[in-house]
Formats: sequence, C-alpha cells, structure tokens
Amino acid sequence: MALRFEVLGRFNRARAAKLTLPHFVCQTPLFMPVGTQGTIKGLTTNQLEEIGCQIILGNTYHLALRPTSELIDELGGLHKFMNWPRALLTDSGGFQMVSLLHLADITEQGVTFQSPVDGKPMLLTPEESIQIQNRIGADIIMALDDVVKTTITGPRIEEAMYRTLRWIDRCIAAHKRPNEQNLFGIVQGGLDPVLSYAIGGLAGGEDKDSFWRVVAQCTAALPEDKPRYVMGVGYPLDIVVCSALGADMYDCVYPTRTARFGTALVPEGVLKLKHKAMADDSRPIDLTCACMVCKNYTRAYIHCLVTKDAMGSQLLSYHNLHYMMKLSRDLHSSIVEGRFPEFVCNFLQKMLIELHSELSFWHNPFPVLYKSKMLMAVTSRFPKGDVPEWVCNAMEVAGIDISCCCTLFSHPKD
Amino acid sequence: MALRFEVLGRFNRARAAKLTLPHFVCQTPLFMPVGTQGTIKGLTTNQLEEIGCQIILGNTYHLALRPTSELIDELGGLHKFMNWPRALLTDSGGFQMVSLLHLADITEQGVTFQSPVDGKPMLLTPEESIQIQNRIGADIIMALDDVVKTTITGPRIEEAMYRTLRWIDRCIAAHKRPNEQNLFGIVQGGLDPVLSYAIGGLAGGEDKDSFWRVVAQCTAALPEDKPRYVMGVGYPLDIVVCSALGADMYDCVYPTRTARFGTALVPEGVLKLKHKAMADDSRPIDLTCACMVCKNYTRAYIHCLVTKDAMGSQLLSYHNLHYMMKLSRDLHSSIVEGRFPEFVCNFLQKMLIELHSELSFWHNPFPVLYKSKMLMAVTSRFPKGDVPEWVCNAMEVAGIDISCCCTLFSHPKD
Repeated sequence: MALRFEVLGRFNRARAAKLTLPHFVCQTPLFMPVGTQGTIKGLTTNQLEEIGCQIILGNTYHLALRPTSELIDELGGLHKFMNWPRALLTDSGGFQMVSLLHLADITEQGVTFQSPVDGKPMLLTPEESIQIQNRIGADIIMALDDVVKTTITGPRIEEAMYRTLRWIDRCIAAHKRPNEQNLFGIVQGGLDPVLSYAIGGLAGGEDKDSFWRVVAQCTAALPEDKPRYVMGVGYPLDIVVCSALGADMYDCVYPTRTARFGTALVPEGVLKLKHKAMADDSRPIDLTCACMVCKNYTRAYIHCLVTKDAMGSQLLSYHNLHYMMKLSRDLHSSIVEGRFPEFVCNFLQKMLIELHSELSFWHNPFPVLYKSKMLMAVTSRFPKGDVPEWVCNAMEVAGIDISCCCTLFSHPKD
Repeated sequence: MALRFEVLGRFNRARAAKLTLPHFVCQTPLFMPVGTQGTIKGLTTNQLEEIGCQIILGNTYHLALRPTSELIDELGGLHKFMNWPRALLTDSGGFQMVSLLHLADITEQGVTFQSPVDGKPMLLTPEESIQIQNRIGADIIMALDDVVKTTITGPRIEEAMYRTLRWIDRCIAAHKRPNEQNLFGIVQGGLDPVLSYAIGGLAGGEDKDSFWRVVAQCTAALPEDKPRYVMGVGYPLDIVVCSALGADMYDCVYPTRTARFGTALVPEGVLKLKHKAMADDSRPIDLTCACMVCKNYTRAYIHCLVTKDAMGSQLLSYHNLHYMMKLSRDLHSSIVEGRFPEFVCNFLQKMLIELHSELSFWHNPFPVLYKSKMLMAVTSRFPKGDVPEWVCNAMEVAGIDISCCCTLFSHPKD
C-alpha cells in the first residue's frame, strides 16, 4: 500500500497522525479542499502551498469528461497537469453521477447514466472507475460505492452495504498501481477490515444527532492503524466533533463555495462580507488571523468586491482555506501536546463569546454602535446561545469535558 | 510637481526615461494595466509586482460610486485600500460618464449625467473631479476633458479643444495636493505647454492611419521634458509604433479583457486557447516566455479552464500582463542600448514568420499536422502577410528602418 499511517498522539478516541503519501507527508486531522476541475477556484497552487494545504481532492467525473483521463495520463498525470507537487485524492466518480444526473441507475454491474456528451446510456463499473483513477494518478483513489441517500431507510441500505462490499473486491482486483496509489474502501452501513476507510453516506442532510452517532460507531469499529475519512464534511464544528470521535480526514466544498457567496469563516462563526455594516469597516476579516488577506485588506475593500469581482472570491477563499488549514494544524498539535480538551473548549467558547457581547450590548445603556454593526454581519454557529445538545452528547462519548463552555452561558445572568 | 522625468536614452523621436512618482520610480515606455474597481481582475498585488507592473490605472467613476472617494480617503487612500505599494493613476471620471451613460451632457460647467444610484441629474465639474481624485490619492491624476467621439468632425472638435483648455485652468486651481499628486493635462485637438501631457481622443475606432498621424503630430509639438501619455492604447503593435513616435505611457483593458475571452498575447500575434487544437497541446502558451504560467502550465490545462473557471482568466491575465510588461522593458532597454531599430524589426518579423510557416505548410506535400493545428489557433497580427502600410509609414516618420521585414515576405516566392 502506497501509504504509511503513524499515530503520533491520542486523546481518548482522538488521534493525531503522520500520513505518508507518495507525493507528500500529511498531518492528520486533515481537511482537503475540493478542486473539481484540477483547480481550487481562484487560487494558484503557490497560494495553496503558502496556506499550508497538504492534499487536494479532484473530481473524477469532471476530469474524465474534460480533459479526459487518457489526456491527463498522456500529459504526465494530474499532479503535473495542475502544477501541484503535493498530495491528491480522486473520488470514484459515482457520487457525481448519482447526484448530478437524474437518469443514473445502479445495477450490480455499476452505475448506468446518460452521457452528458451525447445523451447515450453509459455504464461506470468499479473496474472502469479504478482504471480512470489509475490514469489520473492521485495519491489516494476511492472505491466505487453504491451511494444511497442518507435519509433513505429499509432494505435499500442493506443492499448498498453488501453491493459496496462486492464492488470493493472488484476495485482491488482492477487496481493496477497499488505501489503508487492507495485505494480507500468506503463504509456504506458495513465494514471491511483490510483497507483504509472512508465513511460515506453522511453529510447528506441527516440530523446532526444521527450524523455524529454514525461517525462514532464507525470510528469505534474501524481498525486503529488506518486513516478514517469522513466524506463531504467541512463545517469547522463538525470537523472538531468528528476528530474528537477518532476521524482523521475530511473534504468539503463549503469553505470555497461560501467564499464565493461572500462569507468568511471566523472563530465566532461566519462573517457576511456583503452586509452593509462591512462597507466602512477598516478592520481585517478576523483580527486574530495571520493570513495574507487579513494582513493586507480591510473588510471595506472586500465588501466592495465581493460577488462583483473575481478578486472578492479569491481573497475570501484564501482566508477560508487558511482558516481550515489552521484548524487542522491546531487539532493535530493540541492532540500531540496533550491539550485537546482545552482546544475544544476554547473553540466552542469563541462561538459563545460573541453572543454574550451581543447580550451585553442589549443590556448596555450606552451601546457601542461600531460593535453592534459588526454583530449584524456575524452569524454565530450557536444561535440558541449555548453549545448545541448534539455537540455536548458527542463530546461526552468522546470523553472531552466541555463543562466550562456550558457554565459560561449562565454566568452573566448571575 | 510630484514627478521627475529624466530621459535616459533616445533613438530619433523615441525616448526611454526614468519617471519618478511619489510611490514608485517607473521606466518608460510604460504600459499601465486597468484596475477599474481597485483590483486587476483575478490578480493579486503580489502577482502584479512579480510581473513587474509599475503603475495601475484606477477608474475614478467606479471608485467614486463604490466605495466612494470619501471612504477611500478615510481608509488611508487607494494605495492602502487595494494593498498596492507602487504607483497609481486615476482618470477624471468624465470618459466613463460620457461612454457608459446615455444621458450625459456636456456644458461649460461640466459633465451632466443621470446618477446611476437614484437617477437624478448630477454634475461633474473639473473642480469636483480633482477633489475626488485628491481624496483617492493616486500618484497621477487626470484633468477633466471635454470628450468627443474620435470620428466626429466639424466645430464640435474646436469647442472641445477650447473647453478642455478652459477646464485645465479650473483643474489646476482646484488641485489641493500638488506636492503628492501630479496633474496631467489632456490634448483634445490643442496644446498647453505647462503640464505633462495625455493624448486623448484616440483609440476610439479611428482608422490606423489617422491614429498614428495624430500621435506623431502631438509628440512632435509637445515639450521634450515631460511624459506623453496616449490614453486607451494597448495593442502591442500600437505601443511599439507610438513609442517610435515619441510617446511614453499607455493604458488599456485589452490584455486583461482578451484574457477573459480566452486569448493569449504571443510574439506571433494572439493564441486562442478556446480553439480545439489546444485541447491536447502539452506545450506552454509561448515557448519563448519565462512567466510563471508558461513555466508551469500547458495549453491543454488552460484550454480546460478557459471561460469556464476563474483560474483560466487568471492564468491568461497573468501571462498577458507579463507580455505587456516585458514589451515595456524591452522598448526601454533597446532605446537605452541604442538597438531600437533591431528591436522593432525583430518584433515585426515574429508576426510574419508564423504566417510563413503556414504558407510553407500549404506548399509542403508532407505537412506536420501538429503545426497546422497550432496555426489554426494563432491569429497573426498581419493578416495580409506583410507589414501593414500604416506601420511602414509611421516607421518612416519615426526614422526606423524596417526594410528587412518587408523583404522577408517576398523571399519564399523567389
């Protein structure tokens, strides 16, 4: 297997590891930005290295359509094509076929779909998915799984589990570059003890309580010595919770997509740069952030550009990915250094503190207008003013004491 | 005056100079990219420095609308706002009012237009234009001129000339920061011996023969010791011709706008990256170019992204501005080093050579398919296969011998 996974530190179920891949040595917990078409929209690969990005996810379906996997192969592989020296992961292509195409149909052979090029029916088999991914040449390739909607119940789930297990054998047999590319199996209701693991079937609109419980169940049952990848997860809070439960890898379009809509990730939650309160705000997006954008640009400048000029998305994407990379690094170092609970408490508290400022603003006979204007543009991740119950429950299972965060809320009422 | 202009070298009418501005020491001939809204679309200010960009043009009209000149002033000026340490130039705002707004009307007081915010009639006077530009704080600010269509004839031209001269006096009187910002007057049919000069009223669709003759007339009459700026000019060939005639500064949206449409500037003319011949071309945009894009990316990669992903425009804008900056540097050094005619001949010959390859392809019984595919995507700037007559005429006036280029064409027929 073209992968080495060494756990460097633990706190209960949480782990911090060194993940050695053919093109890069990564540290987990690890967030992977999504570069659908061989590019993270608006950011150069230089900037991604600057931010500390370790691995990028490419979408097999999009790359296979254009420029085609044959051409990428001919041009020396995806690393060379997109000028990215670090690690790459490709998905199987199956998810996009099921989610993007209405006529996708899953049979034992594979995923049948209408070709977006000529409208003819086409079949993506596990063998073909692996062949395409072998040509693209990413460090990690994903098995084709039988994707079912997270909200579906009944025998279809069991069918998906067994089919995904049957398909993984076909994927293993088809894999032609096991020494250069590492194949991840996907958990769809069931488990296989041989491979590295991706927990699929989540991040599809299920309630948060089901979400964390499935992650907890999977990470408890999966082997300790392999990386565990929760697919499609990308909210900072979810990554902190999943990491506490023993997951290692994540991917999501969220940080870059929300940037294009004008939203910045900040410790307090999210900051809406389109909000008119930002128009004359001379401060950086996040006063505590050391990224290039926060060092050089004001909220007022970004407000001017956002959703109107490409530079607006670029600057926000840069900041948001910097935020995610810093979060990954902080998770890693706090676990290694034995201060993971403090990190989690600190992370949760920041989302509460802003709300307290708002409360104190309402109770203050001389409110500071500047502060109140800023608050209108900040959406706290904890709208009820306390750590959500599902987070408290998950942290209890993870063995992380977050009582200091819960008492903080009642404090000002004393 | 916040400007020093030292001529370092000459070749007949052409000059190479050092232009010292409050924020940067520039070298002329000099191309200024247009950053309408306080940003060159898709490029960071770091990248612009990397490319060798010396001065950026900001559009007063757009900046005055949003974020407003008052706010830019409050936030420390445009340099700080857009994080650009080098030189800036702002236009008067008049041109956009006349060209973008249908209801603009010019009276002795100023330019009357319908407010794009609330539809009410508004008046931009010379005094207001200068006041706004004083607040924005660029190194060079432009006088408000009476803009007339280049294709108009008759007494309106004379009126524009005299009004522009009357308005320049009002601009000079209104200018509050003469030690930090340098005011450029604009030639509209007439001349004023006091200021630095912009040759306006061109680049508006006039025929090339009229164009170069007006430039030649203006540069011949304008003082030797001041920079001469031909507004709105940006085709590489036009810049070479105008520089030969004694102009020093240029601005145009062309290199970045054409990039967004998928076109790259190359020595042979332009390369259309959208062309299907580019899809599997593993070469860089320009094999002779040393820019970051040509070092790291293939035509096939850019073909994949162009007009579909922001990264496509970014990479092409980077390359195109690099091309323009290199052209500026080459003009400067070839004049200083006394080899300007060789540079011009070499520049013109490259545009002919590609066409010759195409001719030899048609006459070759065993054509190289690869080459022919590439040619389909290249548009030579000399479609008739010879140096255009207006260029020959202009070069004669400029005293540049380009006979070697003219004989080259007839050579293969011998």
